[in-house]
Amino acid sequence: MSTALDARWMARAIQLAERGHFTTSPNPKVGCVLVRNDELLAEGWHIRAGEGHAEVNALAQVDDASGATAYVSLEPCSHHGKTGPCAEALIMAGVKRVVVAMEDPNPQVSGRGVQLLRDAGIVVEIGLQQSEAEKLNPGFIKRMKTGLPRTRAKLAMSVDGRTAMASGESQWITGAEARRDVQRLRAASCAIVSGVDTVIYDDAALTVRPEQAELAEDQCRQPLRVILDSKLRTPVKGKLFQGGGPVLIVAAADMPEAREALEQAGAEVMILAGEDGRVDLAAVLKELGRRQCNEVLVESGATLAGAFLQAELLDALTVYMAPTLLGRKARPLFELPLDDMNSQRRLHIDDIRAVGNDWRLDATLHTVAH
Amino acid sequence: MSTALDARWMARAIQLAERGHFTTSPNPKVGCVLVRNDELLAEGWHIRAGEGHAEVNALAQVDDASGATAYVSLEPCSHHGKTGPCAEALIMAGVKRVVVAMEDPNPQVSGRGVQLLRDAGIVVEIGLQQSEAEKLNPGFIKRMKTGLPRTRAKLAMSVDGRTAMASGESQWITGAEARRDVQRLRAASCAIVSGVDTVIYDDAALTVRPEQAELAEDQCRQPLRVILDSKLRTPVKGKLFQGGGPVLIVAAADMPEAREALEQAGAEVMILAGEDGRVDLAAVLKELGRRQCNEVLVESGATLAGAFLQAELLDALTVYMAPTLLGRKARPLFELPLDDMNSQRRLHIDDIRAVGNDWRLDATLHTVAH
Repeated sequence: MSTALDARWMARAIQLAERGHFTTSPNPKVGCVLVRNDELLAEGWHIRAGEGHAEVNALAQVDDASGATAYVSLEPCSHHGKTGPCAEALIMAGVKRVVVAMEDPNPQVSGRGVQLLRDAGIVVEIGLQQSEAEKLNPGFIKRMKTGLPRTRAKLAMSVDGRTAMASGESQWITGAEARRDVQRLRAASCAIVSGVDTVIYDDAALTVRPEQAELAEDQCRQPLRVILDSKLRTPVKGKLFQGGGPVLIVAAADMPEAREALEQAGAEVMILAGEDGRVDLAAVLKELGRRQCNEVLVESGATLAGAFLQAELLDALTVYMAPTLLGRKARPLFELPLDDMNSQRRLHIDDIRAVGNDWRLDATLHTVAH
Repeated sequence: MSTALDARWMARAIQLAERGHFTTSPNPKVGCVLVRNDELLAEGWHIRAGEGHAEVNALAQVDDASGATAYVSLEPCSHHGKTGPCAEALIMAGVKRVVVAMEDPNPQVSGRGVQLLRDAGIVVEIGLQQSEAEKLNPGFIKRMKTGLPRTRAKLAMSVDGRTAMASGESQWITGAEARRDVQRLRAASCAIVSGVDTVIYDDAALTVRPEQAELAEDQCRQPLRVILDSKLRTPVKGKLFQGGGPVLIVAAADMPEAREALEQAGAEVMILAGEDGRVDLAAVLKELGRRQCNEVLVESGATLAGAFLQAELLDALTVYMAPTLLGRKARPLFELPLDDMNSQRRLHIDDIRAVGNDWRLDATLHTVAH
C-alpha cells in the first residue's frame, strides 16, 4: 500500500532521474532513493551508459541499507550487462521493500527484475507515479516497444504559421533565447535528421555548442547527424565536416564517386530507397532504432517535415513562434497538401511557454502505430 | 510619498474597477477605496454610464469620510455630467488626501480634477500603479487621445496558421470553451465589425448569448453590429435581424432600393467610400469613435482582417489556436501579401493561455499612429 510519504520519495527519485537528461542515452533516465524509518539514506541516478545504474549508485552511498525501502523510477534490471543486475544488488544489500514507478518497457525482460526481488522475499509495489515516470523516457519506451525511435520535428514560424518569405528570405525570425533552447533540444537528442538542402543552402553544422546550450563539456554530447540526400549532393567542404558528431548520409541510390568522396570526408553512407525512388523515411527510422537512438530530432524545411507528417512518422512537434506576421505569400510550415477537414492532422498541445520574445509550442501528434 | 500600504490600497481600487468590465462603456472602468488610519472605510466602482462614479459610490457607503485618503484608479472628474463632479464630492466629504493612479487621458480636461482638489487644500499624488491603471481602459484612453476606438481582430486558426480548407470548409476548428470565450470578448466590446460575406455565408448573428458568455442579463450588453457591405448585399432575412444590438451597415455607394429594404429591416445605413471605391476603413473607425466606441472587435475572414492590418488600423489581435494542422493548401490567417522581411508586421505577444483544448494568443501590434 503506497502512502503520501511514498509519493514524496518517488517524486524525488523521478527528479533525480531528470539529472541524466543529456547523458544517459541509449539507456533510460532512472532515479533511486533509499529510505529507512522514513529517513533518507541515499540517493542515486544513472548518469551514462557503461556507468553505474541508479540503484547501484544509491547503494554505494551507504554502508548498511538493510531493512530499507528503495524507490526506483524504473523496474530494477535483471540482466548482466556492463554492470551487474540491480535487482541482485538490492537483494544483497538487504533491502526489504522496493517501490517501482513502472515496469521495464522491454517486453523481453519486463517483470523479471520484480520477480527476482519477490523470489528473494522482498515486498515489491509497482505503478506509483507511473505516468510521471513514463514522461522521463518517451523515446526509450517507444524504442523498447517498437524498435523505432521517438521523432520530434523542430520548426520556427511566424504567428501566421509561415517559415520564410516566398523568396526564401528568412534568417533569424526567432531570437537568441529560442536559438539557445534549440541547442538544448539538440543536446538531448540521439540523432538529428535533416535534408541535404539545409546543408547546401544554410551550410548547417547541426552540432551542439556547449556554451550556447549552457551545458558543461561533460554534459554535452554530439548527436549523430543524419542527412537525407537522395542523390548524394552533400558538399564535402561544409561546416558539417568541421567537428561535431558522426555523419550518416542516406541516399536513394549508390553513386560510387560521390559516395567515396563523402566517406573520405568522414561520413558513413547508406542506401535506403523507397518504392518512389526517394529515401525511405520509415527505413531510416528503423535503422536509427537499430543504432539505439531513443530521441530523433528532425530539423528541416517544410518539405521533409511534411513528408514525415504525411507518412505518419512524427510523434511530436516543437514550434518556436516568433512575434511577427509574414503574410499569405510566405512559405508554409509543412508541405502538407490536404484537401478536406477529414484529412486534418489533429494534435495535442502539451505546453506553450515564452522563450525570450518568442514562444515555444510542444505538441504530440496522434500518430498511427507502425 | 507613496508607501507599500498605498500600493496595496491602489491595487484594490484597480481590482474594483475591473468589475465594470462589461458595463461601463463608453465610460472608463474606475475603482475607488476610502481609507482612514489604515483602515478600510468604503469601496466603490463605476458600474454604468449615467449611474454614480466610483468616488461617489464609495462616499455613499460612509456617513463620515473626513480625514480619509481616497485611492482612485483615474483622476476624479471636474465636470458636471450626468452626475456631479467627483472632485467636488471628495472636497465636500472632507477627504484630506487623494492618490490617483493616472490623470484623465482626455487632453481637454486632464489635470482639472487634480487642480480642484489641490485648490481645496487636499494633498494629491499622481502616478501610483499608472501602468496597471492604464491597462483597465486601453480603448477609452485611445479614444480620448485620438478620437478613434481601439481595434482588436479575433481569428481562429490551426497551429500552422490556417483558418479553413481551400474549399472554405472550416466549421468548429475551435472547441466549445473557445467559443464561450469569444462571447465574453464580444460582450466587452462596444462594436463588432464584420464583412458582408460573414453574414451571407455563415448567417452570423454577432450577438452575445448571456448564458454562453456566463454573464447575468444585466451584465450583458449587445454591442453595435457594423457590417461592411460595399454593395448593400446584406440579406434582410438573416439572423442579424433577429434580436441583438443595433445594426449599422456601411456601404461604398448608395443603392436606394437595397438601402430602404435594410432600413425597413431595422438597420441604419451609411455611405463611407474610400478612394478605391470600397468602404473607407479609417472613416468607419472615425465614425465609431464619434459614437463613443472604446473597444471595437473585428470578427471577419482573412480579407477584411488583412485590410485592417495593411491599413495599419489594427491595435491588437486575439487568435484562438486549435490543436490541428490544416496543411499548405488551406486558407491563410490574413490576406496580407508581403514580399520581403522588411515588410513583415512585428507584434508583441502579451499572453498565450489554454482555453479548453485550444490556446488563446493575445498580441499587440506596433501600429503607426493615425
